[in-house]
This record gives sequence, C-alpha cells and structure tokens, in this order.
Amino acid sequence: MMRKYISEVIGTFTMVFCGTGAMTINEVTGGDVTHVGIAITWGLIVMAMIYSFGDISGAHFNPAVTIAFAYAKKFKWKEVPKYILAQCIGAIAASSILLFLFPESEFLGGTLPSFDPLRAFILELLLTYFLMLVIINVSTGSKEVGMMAGIAIGGVVLLEAMFAGPMTNASMNPARSLGPALLSGHWEHQWLYMIAPLIGAILAVLTCRITKTDNCCNEC
Amino acid sequence: MMRKYISEVIGTFTMVFCGTGAMTINEVTGGDVTHVGIAITWGLIVMAMIYSFGDISGAHFNPAVTIAFAYAKKFKWKEVPKYILAQCIGAIAASSILLFLFPESEFLGGTLPSFDPLRAFILELLLTYFLMLVIINVSTGSKEVGMMAGIAIGGVVLLEAMFAGPMTNASMNPARSLGPALLSGHWEHQWLYMIAPLIGAILAVLTCRITKTDNCCNEC
Amino acid sequence: MMRKYISEVIGTFTMVFCGTGAMTINEVTGGDVTHVGIAITWGLIVMAMIYSFGDISGAHFNPAVTIAFAYAKKFKWKEVPKYILAQCIGAIAASSILLFLFPESEFLGGTLPSFDPLRAFILELLLTYFLMLVIINVSTGSKEVGMMAGIAIGGVVLLEAMFAGPMTNASMNPARSLGPALLSGHWEHQWLYMIAPLIGAILAVLTCRITKTDNCCNEC
Amino acid sequence: MMRKYISEVIGTFTMVFCGTGAMTINEVTGGDVTHVGIAITWGLIVMAMIYSFGDISGAHFNPAVTIAFAYAKKFKWKEVPKYILAQCIGAIAASSILLFLFPESEFLGGTLPSFDPLRAFILELLLTYFLMLVIINVSTGSKEVGMMAGIAIGGVVLLEAMFAGPMTNASMNPARSLGPALLSGHWEHQWLYMIAPLIGAILAVLTCRITKTDNCCNEC
Repeated sequence: MMRKYISEVIGTFTMVFCGTGAMTINEVTGGDVTHVGIAITWGLIVMAMIYSFGDISGAHFNPAVTIAFAYAKKFKWKEVPKYILAQCIGAIAASSILLFLFPESEFLGGTLPSFDPLRAFILELLLTYFLMLVIINVSTGSKEVGMMAGIAIGGVVLLEAMFAGPMTNASMNPARSLGPALLSGHWEHQWLYMIAPLIGAILAVLTCRITKTDNCCNEC
Repeated sequence: MMRKYISEVIGTFTMVFCGTGAMTINEVTGGDVTHVGIAITWGLIVMAMIYSFGDISGAHFNPAVTIAFAYAKKFKWKEVPKYILAQCIGAIAASSILLFLFPESEFLGGTLPSFDPLRAFILELLLTYFLMLVIINVSTGSKEVGMMAGIAIGGVVLLEAMFAGPMTNASMNPARSLGPALLSGHWEHQWLYMIAPLIGAILAVLTCRITKTDNCCNEC
Repeated sequence: MMRKYISEVIGTFTMVFCGTGAMTINEVTGGDVTHVGIAITWGLIVMAMIYSFGDISGAHFNPAVTIAFAYAKKFKWKEVPKYILAQCIGAIAASSILLFLFPESEFLGGTLPSFDPLRAFILELLLTYFLMLVIINVSTGSKEVGMMAGIAIGGVVLLEAMFAGPMTNASMNPARSLGPALLSGHWEHQWLYMIAPLIGAILAVLTCRITKTDNCCNEC
Repeated sequence: MMRKYISEVIGTFTMVFCGTGAMTINEVTGGDVTHVGIAITWGLIVMAMIYSFGDISGAHFNPAVTIAFAYAKKFKWKEVPKYILAQCIGAIAASSILLFLFPESEFLGGTLPSFDPLRAFILELLLTYFLMLVIINVSTGSKEVGMMAGIAIGGVVLLEAMFAGPMTNASMNPARSLGPALLSGHWEHQWLYMIAPLIGAILAVLTCRITKTDNCCNEC
C-alpha cells in the first residue's frame, strides 16, 4: 500500500520541482525560459508523470483531483487524507530544494492573481473544471482513449498554463500552490487557489454524470 | 440522446473559451500569451476535447464539420440543426463569460481578416479543406489511425492557427466566429467565416470520395 | 490505382502549402509566424498527412523518400516516376496558389543556403539521412512502433526545420524546393536541394541494412 | 550482435548532432534557433531515435542510463563498456562534423554551468533522476505505456532542457557532454556532467525498487 503514497510524493515532487522550477529559473534569469517554455514544462512533466506512475497510484498529484475522484465514487474517501498528505509533502519538498538552489528567488514559482481576485477565482474554477472534465472522461473511456490519457491531460495543463498563466498562474492544484507559498512566504490570495480548484473539479464530476451513462461516472 | 447535445455544448464551450480566451488575454496583457502560445492553445484544446467527448458525440464542435459529415452520409441530416444549435450555444456562452472576465477586451478573440477579404475567403476555404480532409480520413481509417485522431486533428488546428492566424485568425468554424462577433459587436467580414468553412469542408468530402473506396467515405 | 497518385498530389500540396505558406506569411508580415512557428507548422502538417494518407499511398510526399524506398526494394521502381510526378504537381500547385494569395512575397518559402553551399550540401545530406533513417526504421518496425510513425516522422521534420532552418531552410525534399523555386524564380543553389536529399536517403537505407536483419530492410 | 552497438553509435550521433547542432547554430546565428527551439530539438530527436532504435539496442544513447539499467539487473554488466564506447564514438563523431561545418563556434553545444558548480551538480543530479525515473517506469510498465515510451521520455528531455537549460545546459548524459568538450577544448566543470548523471540515474533505480514490486525493477 505504501507504494501508492510514495508514488504520489515523488510524482508531485517531480511535477512541482520542474513546473515551479521553470518559473523560478525564469525569474532569476530575467526571462530566459520564456512564458511559452514554462507552459510547455508544466504540460510535459504532467504527461511524463502520468505514464510513469499512473499504473501505481492513479497519478493524481492534486488534492482537488483526489477529492473529485472520491466524490465520483471512483476512489475511497478513507484514502483521501493520505493522498493529500503525500501530495503536500511532495510539493513542499520541491519548493524547499528550489529555495536552496535559488535563494535569490522571491516567489519560487508561486501562484498570484494579476487581476481582480474574484475574477481570478472564477477563472481558476473554470480551469480546474476543464482539467477534471478531461481527466474523468479519458479515465472512464475506452482502452484506446485511456492510452492517450497522459497526452490529453498533459495537453490541457500545458494549454491552460499557456493562456491563463498571465492572469492567475494557472494553479488548478492546492498542493502545487501550497509549496511555494509556504517557502516564499507569499500567502496573498491563496484562499482562492485552495477553494476554486475544489469547486471546479466537483462540477466536472457532476457534468460527467449528465454526459456519460450512470454506471460509468457514478459507481465504477 | 441529450447526452450528445450536452457534450457538443460543453466541448464547444471549452474549446472557444480556451482558444478565444488565449486571444483575449493576449490582447489585454499586451502580448503575454504570444502568437505561438495562442496557436498551441487552440490545437491542444481541440485534441483534449476529442479524447474527452469523441465517444459520446463524435466531437464535431463545428457546424462546417457537422454539415460535411451529413453530406458524406456519415451523420443524420435531421441531427444537423440540433448539433449546430448546441455548438452555437456553447460558443456564445464562452464569449459571454470572457466578456464578464475581461470587459476591457475589444475583440474577445474574434476573427477578422488582415488582408483582402477575397483572398481571406480563399485562405479560410483552404484551411477548412485541409482540416476536414484530416478529420474524414482519420475517422474512416484503421483502428490504429483512429486512436491518433485527436493528435492529428488537434495538430492541424494548431498548425493552421500558427501559420494562417496572422492573415485570417484561422477560424475554420462558423460557431467559433459567431460567439465573439455577437458579444463584441464586430461583424465586419463575418460572412466569409460563415461560408468559406462550409465550402472547404464539402470539398474535402468530395476529395475523400476520390481517394478512398466508395463504401468508406460514401455510406458507412 | 489512381487513388494513390491523387493522394500523393493532395498530400504534397497540403504539406507544401502549409509549410511554405508559413514562411511566406512570416515574410509578408515581417515575422508574425516566428521561426519556431514555421518549424512547428512543417512538423505537424507532415504528421497529419501521414495519418491521413499513409494507408492509401504510403505518404511519401518526397521524391527522395520514394527513390530510397525503391532502392530498399520496398517500393516498385516502375511506380517511382508516377509518384515523383504527383509530388511535383502538388508542390507546384501549392506555390501557385501562394503566389496568387501573396504576390508581394519574394521567395514563397523557397530554400536558400545562408552559408557556404558545400557545407549546406553536407548539412542537407545529413538532415535527409536522419529523416529517412527514422522513416525506414519505424515503417519496418513492430505494429506498435508503426502507430507512432506519424508522430516520429513529423517530429523529425519539426526538429530539423527548427535547428537547421536558419542555415539551409531544411528542405530534405526536392519537390518541396521545386515549387517555390519555379514560381518565385529563385533557382540559386537549387542543385544542392535536388542532389543532397537523394544521397542522404540512400545512405539511410544502407545503414538500415546493417542495423536491421537482412530480410527486413532488403526484401519485405 | 554488432547491430546493437552500431545502433547506439548512430542513435547517439544523430541525437548529439541535432541537439548540440541546435545550440551551435543558435550561437553562430546570434539566437535564430531560440532557447525554446533548442529544447524542442533535444526532446524530439530523443523521441524519434527511441522509436527508430528501441527495438534493436534499447535506445540508451547515454552511459548513465546504460549503467543504471545494469545496476537494475535489466542489462548485462559485460555489455556496459561496449555500449559506453559506442555512445562516446557517436557523440565525438557528431561534434567533429559540427566543428567542420561551424568552425567559428566556440562551444559546439557544450555544457557549462551558469551558476555555482555545487548547485549545478545537484540540479544535474535531479534532472537525471527525473529522466531515469520515467525511463525505468515506462520501460517496465504495461504494453500500452510502453508504446508511449518515446513520447514520455522525449517529453522529459524537452522539458528539462527547457527549464534547466539556462542554468546547466541540461546534459543528463556524460557522452553528450564529452563530444563538445573534446572538440571545443572547454573542459571546465566537466567532472559534474560525468558524475551527477550517474548518481541521479542510480537513485532512480533505487526509487523504482520501492514503488514497483520487486520482481519488476529488480530482476526482470
């Protein structure tokens, strides 16, 4: 059983290290990675981690995804706290090493809205809704679609970081926001990155119940 | 049956929100998303939506594609108006939320030609011809090619937005052009984005009849 | 039988239109597509055309590839002239329409070396060698690898256009160079784009005979 | 048996030629390839070489990967020196041809840290750890995951070159660093590019033993 939790720790660690590392290195080099490069980094590390750990832990790496799967009755509620703990440990470890490597960074790849927080809340909610919509549809689809899960989910992360990054930094993931906030001390507006992903992910499960047959998104 | 229409609404909503959202955020931030980033957003959201909803609705999200499939006898004509209505609802909903989030945007990701409208018409016709050629060939091909459908079709959308975006904004989709036109009030030259995709998509079906055996593109 | 030739015409037409169209639009807009965007366009249109026409014509779209396959005894020599003719027709048609759409373009996406022609010859030879190495290995590999053929081959075209484009424009394809040369009138150094790809592609077949078992690259 | 070594020579040659060629051409043209373009080149050539030579040699192209596979008991120790020799020959050949083509280049795509060497050591160690984690997980996974191996591994190389390139040039591969160092004469800090990848790759094997069942990462 421990294998699942260790996979969530390592997968989240790797994802947060590479993704927020791209933002941190972009910050300390004055833009060498570029915005396009940051978005590509996020998408590809999610894809690679899904193919690496999907068969072991399900490759959640995200408390909002874990809770939404439990809400969809596709994951046991009693496993939820352990998964969330594992994800937070991985994210905090990633930010800790980034702080050691790049002490001059102010934000460590943290998420901050660059416009009205209420609008940022709605945007983060929609971003997570789209992400969870793809996750739940491809993970309950045919075997052929399941093979493409890593590409489809990584692709959504990439495009959302690309188009919405300039407004909200496109978190979609409370654990991913927690690590840099804790280590950089920037807690402003973090409530929205904790709550909006949860609501968005739950709404995606509700949508799935309408568009897919009941036994697919409800019980299996 | 409703599941198919709801999938077309949500898939078109998500696609138009992300794609025109990228253009809108690029506009209001003065270029932060970049032209390359906008094209990547369009391609990847189409890919992700195909893997998410392909098994439910066929993942058209485009009136020109729906009409071309009906013309190819691969989709029932009586379903065409319902699909087009669903697609337009999704696109208009996406532009409405973008208007709420970014009221300072003038175009909301609308399509406008930046050169001679007649040449823009020909270019849009060719772009949709290429897109439909790929759609109909991969969707009537072997099971192995079918698995790659999302990647191939998303790839065509990405590359066409990349190379032709600077001239016509690369619509290839009347519903995708309708949403921003309605909400931003920019109706100039919209006739070409309604008519050119239809002709291009129909020409692709005619091409398919020549290059594939009759029973494949005609009846099945 | 005509279906194969028509597929080669249309596939080469589409590939050359999009790829050289990206270069043409980049030229007339003063750089809007960007160098990265041009390379992505080339790679993705090759990928999409392989998945669209691979099952019909083999998706060569390139005289060097056609001759190399014949040399590898995997394609009939008597078909070679017809395939090359089809490819040249497609490429010339693409450049003709681009000339109509963008009469102000000087090069129409033509290939020109930007350094010493002898070094450009060696670089083009190596580029086509790498391309044909991937083509022949994935097309004679397992069924699983065959499914990835479009992604692998499109990926090689993308990366070669990306890294070598600034030196030689990364043709790897005599038909692709012929179209813009004919319509723009720029014939300087075109001998190298006719000869280097042929030698490079033949060398890849010879390499394949060493690295794969004889019956695979020699006879089947 | 020679087929395996020749495949490692040619695969490493092609990978190093394209990857360091992108860096070399970027240097001599004053930035035409762009940082994003260099990272994309690295990722896609790795992907293409895996699909081309994976069935013949296993597509290591990297002494750290070869030693880690031997340490994981998935590759014979007596083959290790031959593979490493083949990889070094390929890398040195690539740098030799690049030196002939671009004698004005100072670095030939060599790897140099741009910050504190100790921190660069830790970063290179982590980069190779992530790379080997993906390699060993996808190569010991299900058949479906195995099909995606080239995309997942190429994706990791792409993203690591993207985000960490500005700090360490993201080698993760002693052979890849050896070629340019030998031909350009820049041996500063090369010890870190020889040692860090080895430790990182071994740590990934140890992680795999914890997260996967014993018979998978230990013996098979």
